Amino acid sequence: MITIKQIISRIEQRQPVLNKAELTTDQLTLSINGVGSLTDANSTQLSFLADPNYITSLAQSQAGVVLVTEQYREQVPSPTVVVVVASPYLAYASSSQLFVRHTTKSNNIHPTAIIAKSAVIGADVRIGPYCVINEHVHIGDRSCLDANVIVEAYSRIGTDCVFKSQVVIGHDCIIGDYVRLHAGVSIGAEGFGFAPSQDPSIDGWERIAQLGRVIIGSHVRIGSNTCIDRGAIDDTVISDHVIIDNLVQIAHNVRIGAGTAIAANTGIAGSTTIGKRCVIGGAVGINGHIDITDDVTLSGMTMVTKSIKSAGSYSSGTAAMPTAKWRRAAVRFRQLGDS
Amino acid sequence: MITIKQIISRIEQRQPVLNKAELTTDQLTLSINGVGSLTDANSTQLSFLADPNYITSLAQSQAGVVLVTEQYREQVPSPTVVVVVASPYLAYASSSQLFVRHTTKSNNIHPTAIIAKSAVIGADVRIGPYCVINEHVHIGDRSCLDANVIVEAYSRIGTDCVFKSQVVIGHDCIIGDYVRLHAGVSIGAEGFGFAPSQDPSIDGWERIAQLGRVIIGSHVRIGSNTCIDRGAIDDTVISDHVIIDNLVQIAHNVRIGAGTAIAANTGIAGSTTIGKRCVIGGAVGINGHIDITDDVTLSGMTMVTKSIKSAGSYSSGTAAMPTAKWRRAAVRFRQLGDS
Amino acid sequence: MITIKQIISRIEQRQPVLNKAELTTDQLTLSINGVGSLTDANSTQLSFLADPNYITSLAQSQAGVVLVTEQYREQVPSPTVVVVVASPYLAYASSSQLFVRHTTKSNNIHPTAIIAKSAVIGADVRIGPYCVINEHVHIGDRSCLDANVIVEAYSRIGTDCVFKSQVVIGHDCIIGDYVRLHAGVSIGAEGFGFAPSQDPSIDGWERIAQLGRVIIGSHVRIGSNTCIDRGAIDDTVISDHVIIDNLVQIAHNVRIGAGTAIAANTGIAGSTTIGKRCVIGGAVGINGHIDITDDVTLSGMTMVTKSIKSAGSYSSGTAAMPTAKWRRAAVRFRQLGDS
Repeated sequence: MITIKQIISRIEQRQPVLNKAELTTDQLTLSINGVGSLTDANSTQLSFLADPNYITSLAQSQAGVVLVTEQYREQVPSPTVVVVVASPYLAYASSSQLFVRHTTKSNNIHPTAIIAKSAVIGADVRIGPYCVINEHVHIGDRSCLDANVIVEAYSRIGTDCVFKSQVVIGHDCIIGDYVRLHAGVSIGAEGFGFAPSQDPSIDGWERIAQLGRVIIGSHVRIGSNTCIDRGAIDDTVISDHVIIDNLVQIAHNVRIGAGTAIAANTGIAGSTTIGKRCVIGGAVGINGHIDITDDVTLSGMTMVTKSIKSAGSYSSGTAAMPTAKWRRAAVRFRQLGDS
Repeated sequence: MITIKQIISRIEQRQPVLNKAELTTDQLTLSINGVGSLTDANSTQLSFLADPNYITSLAQSQAGVVLVTEQYREQVPSPTVVVVVASPYLAYASSSQLFVRHTTKSNNIHPTAIIAKSAVIGADVRIGPYCVINEHVHIGDRSCLDANVIVEAYSRIGTDCVFKSQVVIGHDCIIGDYVRLHAGVSIGAEGFGFAPSQDPSIDGWERIAQLGRVIIGSHVRIGSNTCIDRGAIDDTVISDHVIIDNLVQIAHNVRIGAGTAIAANTGIAGSTTIGKRCVIGGAVGINGHIDITDDVTLSGMTMVTKSIKSAGSYSSGTAAMPTAKWRRAAVRFRQLGDS
Repeated sequence: MITIKQIISRIEQRQPVLNKAELTTDQLTLSINGVGSLTDANSTQLSFLADPNYITSLAQSQAGVVLVTEQYREQVPSPTVVVVVASPYLAYASSSQLFVRHTTKSNNIHPTAIIAKSAVIGADVRIGPYCVINEHVHIGDRSCLDANVIVEAYSRIGTDCVFKSQVVIGHDCIIGDYVRLHAGVSIGAEGFGFAPSQDPSIDGWERIAQLGRVIIGSHVRIGSNTCIDRGAIDDTVISDHVIIDNLVQIAHNVRIGAGTAIAANTGIAGSTTIGKRCVIGGAVGINGHIDITDDVTLSGMTMVTKSIKSAGSYSSGTAAMPTAKWRRAAVRFRQLGDS
């Protein structure tokens, strides 16, 4: 059981709770056992008002505790406990982590995990069943690998990481602290580099060995089945605080600046550099060998063919319309290309 | 060996065979050992005419048995056996399942599978090598897990499911009966939810714990390496009879109505609701927090930015043209944006 | 340590070294231990000039050896060793392979690999931990499977293949020689084939058993988490020298001609045929049941809805622009559809 006092303590790791002094002991010791939306939360649950559009739900909420800004505190109905913060959404994010189910972890290192003698495993590391940790790998304190995780030789993993099942880390990669990799992530596979063989008798390609690494900073999050390939000569680099969704492709030698967020199904071609604090929507396609500056927002499905040198929001494409109408528009678009 | 009698029996689980009474015992006991197209099938194989464009192939077919509508029964050459149904394509689908190779399954529960003591495993369940079934998981009768499948704690899997190798099921998920998950599917990974940290000294994000589940109905099919994330507060819901292709992204709190089909590479952003019986083409992108009503068809690569309130077919984008011509059209599209 | 003599020998497997006779014994025996760009490489590293835009970097390079065309040989500064070839990029590709790290492989067949008695394993095959090789599988000489690879029954794998961790090969597939499959690849999963059940009481689909195989030629490369589904009746076919990037979807009964390259996130719908030597950009979408002839180039994110009968370069879509301007352009595109 989590008390409101514990919730406040967690929120204050990120921002002050503005009405803390006003809360009574009874309120501070109230037990909260989960979260819910303003309309669904009951008296043992926490809720929050981040979007003023939900203000009507606030007045009727049955939640045990609600996180709001100063502006809306008077509209929280009694007996719901009010917690006043500058950013209720951030406060919700912080407190939500108290309610994660922690399933029993009976073994720190499961007996079926295969760990090379030369590997260096930190304190309180958990390695699940059927993991394979190869030669000269380092794993930092308190990192946790679920089942079937493979770490190839000479890779270094920081402290407090969480790697879910089926993750594969290629050799010689470097991963920082507090990194979360979800199911099936591939880090450090060979980049897609080939030279035409120039032998007319075969339709062939000569493979270019990918001799760079993947370097991932700290506090990075990478979603399920996302792929980040190793560099050809230099490294592929993902900076601190980058968050990446599922099924994203990051090609060899891409560099992504700190704090950038990338939504699902996006692909970034080789040797492109993305700045800091960018927000990249889903299914965006970014060409290779270009630069995108800091603080760029790309809406979903945008096609980026050239460098973007000014911060701001960019888009492309056309939006869904009835198919019959679309057919005419598409024909006219094609006619725009007639000289 | 499969007889035509067995084929008819399988077809009739879905629709009547209209000329069954006319078939002779010799015909009903004929052995069929595979399937083929009208042009390729030999006298021991089954074929079908679903598309009238292939009518010329029918007249020359050497197939042992052909499934046709009443309209074309006279055009089947002798000695091919004719089976008359309202939907030959559906009849082919039904009968095709008789020809699947069933490889030997020597163990019901492979000795290397790790199964928590608190897990409840039904009758005739098959669990392959190196699977990991965690605490309090339930698996229904006759379900079959191939190799390296991971099921996290407290998840419940129905009866008659087939999970191929490398599937990962997160904790507390609920999966119905007759669900087929292909290689590398991720169900119930953490949704992509973060609040900006608002600390100007770091380019950071505060993770929002994803406390909802994934609830999957019965008769659902999910293709290889597709990802369905767990909900943030409420659940992500996939209704009965939904079929999903490979490499699809379904974000947290998406709800998909019964009977909807989704082709490969499509992404559906968070909290969007899709209706019943929709047909969503490949590489479609659907924005978050919108509603798509029942019976909507979206052609491949459509970008859906707003809710769709009327049933029907929708499209977007422009189709391939010679690159030189496209460059001019794209420039003129850009000029359309000049005020 | 690799000598320049060894580098030349490797290059000459693909093309002659034009100034070999002029190199001194001291030059030929020089040790090179890595690669670098023209600006970064030091005196123990190899570099190359493939793009004349980097000509200014050449004059200042500190590299131990540089690969150049005849045209630029005079501009290599002393004491850097010059190796003259027709294609420096191809020569770099060839020589790069000498510098790959070979991690220790203590076991040829890891004791935890589960191999059916009926499987036939060639000479010098390496099978890593927790692999599962099912009944009647053949694996050719010198092929190497990393950890957790699953090969279902009756599949045949050629010689000199490399399958990285978490690869799954469905039953009855045929894979040639020198095939490289990266982490999490799915070959031979069930294609996405369903017939509407036509029972109005359920929103259902009847599954069509996928009775074809996947046939992959030799010298094929397939990137991480890519999916290639088995055919419905006939086979899905990937010809020799095809190279495919990460997260690509290849549906059932697709046929891809020799030497074609396919970049990441692309999807090819069912029963489409792609010619030889095509170059398909990232996130391209190709409709089902169409033909694309030989020597077609498709730029990234192109939508291909119809067959392409002439070689050449094709594109579609619109490129990123500031969002406010894009909104106006998109509205005007929509108006093009008004009759």
